[in-house]
Amino acid sequence: MENYIENLNWRYATKKFNPEKKLSEDEVQSLLKSIQLSASSYGLQPYEVFVISDEETKAKLKPAAWNQSQLTDASHVFVFAGLKKIDENYLDAYLDNISKIRDIQIQDLSGLKNMLTTNIVEQPEANQKTWAQKQAYIALGNLLSAAAHLKIDTCPMEGFDAQKFDEILGINETNLTSAVIATAGFRSEEDQMQHAKKVRKQKEELFHII
Amino acid sequence: MENYIENLNWRYATKKFNPEKKLSEDEVQSLLKSIQLSASSYGLQPYEVFVISDEETKAKLKPAAWNQSQLTDASHVFVFAGLKKIDENYLDAYLDNISKIRDIQIQDLSGLKNMLTTNIVEQPEANQKTWAQKQAYIALGNLLSAAAHLKIDTCPMEGFDAQKFDEILGINETNLTSAVIATAGFRSEEDQMQHAKKVRKQKEELFHII
Repeated sequence: MENYIENLNWRYATKKFNPEKKLSEDEVQSLLKSIQLSASSYGLQPYEVFVISDEETKAKLKPAAWNQSQLTDASHVFVFAGLKKIDENYLDAYLDNISKIRDIQIQDLSGLKNMLTTNIVEQPEANQKTWAQKQAYIALGNLLSAAAHLKIDTCPMEGFDAQKFDEILGINETNLTSAVIATAGFRSEEDQMQHAKKVRKQKEELFHII
Repeated sequence: MENYIENLNWRYATKKFNPEKKLSEDEVQSLLKSIQLSASSYGLQPYEVFVISDEETKAKLKPAAWNQSQLTDASHVFVFAGLKKIDENYLDAYLDNISKIRDIQIQDLSGLKNMLTTNIVEQPEANQKTWAQKQAYIALGNLLSAAAHLKIDTCPMEGFDAQKFDEILGINETNLTSAVIATAGFRSEEDQMQHAKKVRKQKEELFHII
């Protein structure tokens, strides 16, 4: 566990990546696996993830993220796009997946379907969108931890224009919208932030032990 | 990394905990450290976490979480409470912390303060609350991963009455509100869900490689 905590201490929001250093295919696959295995409410995974190493696409995204250099210097850009709305079709595909993987008759999942219809599908659309994005943030957390474990640098970012990202990714007329992004690669030796002391709330401020 | 992924595969949303098995103090401290080191937007950590092993408090919370047995059977209940509003005082305490830890004059942080005032403090209160909760979900993700690494079982839960939780925790008239919870402890041998195959979207459905 000490190593696990050390890796979390090692990570920081990388401001300057080394543009020469790229993630290997194995590293990318490990990161994808950690995202895929993330917990989500009912396991609904109400998001999709764009994994971008194409230089041209990264260059197009950069101005929509206040020209932050990470967009083009980092090896990969991960865009977590949340569902805008969870409809019955989505639910059916999810139930179908459970039915196949766990070898359960679809009619035996009707109780689950009714509950999810009430708790999610019938909720106001704005709530569904927020809920989907929160689930994406769990996956973002997983990506950051897994990357730290592999000594891969990351920078999670909310400073981008979601509408422009959606247009560039060609999802603006779909049920997806960009929720949060993370760049991943390797820190530049020049990034002074790697030497800055980590700032966190003291335990007494952050936790209430009952 | 194989071990890391194996641990993520090992974890599942535990439905039935063994009420006899408790987390050790060392285990609790490791989990707290993983939460404390979580990334958050600008490092603002706009949440506090209630870490509850007191049986009486757990029993009080249980009916406010649809009587789910995890509340009392699990060793610990973690309640992530997000800030409702980020005000100037909160910002000042945050900047003060940076100033002390990094030995920077507070006036040299005025650019950062102005940016955070525009980007966060001056945003509509509802947006601030949602934003704070999203940050808490990153920390939730970290808790789940760290627990899996320690072979500690968890169950993240959204099915609870936040208002009742706030009352029981005595925070209903404060700037905090319960956002999401996780129970932690050790699975009961009787929990059949530990044998169920993990259901996840296929990589082709979840990822767009560009």
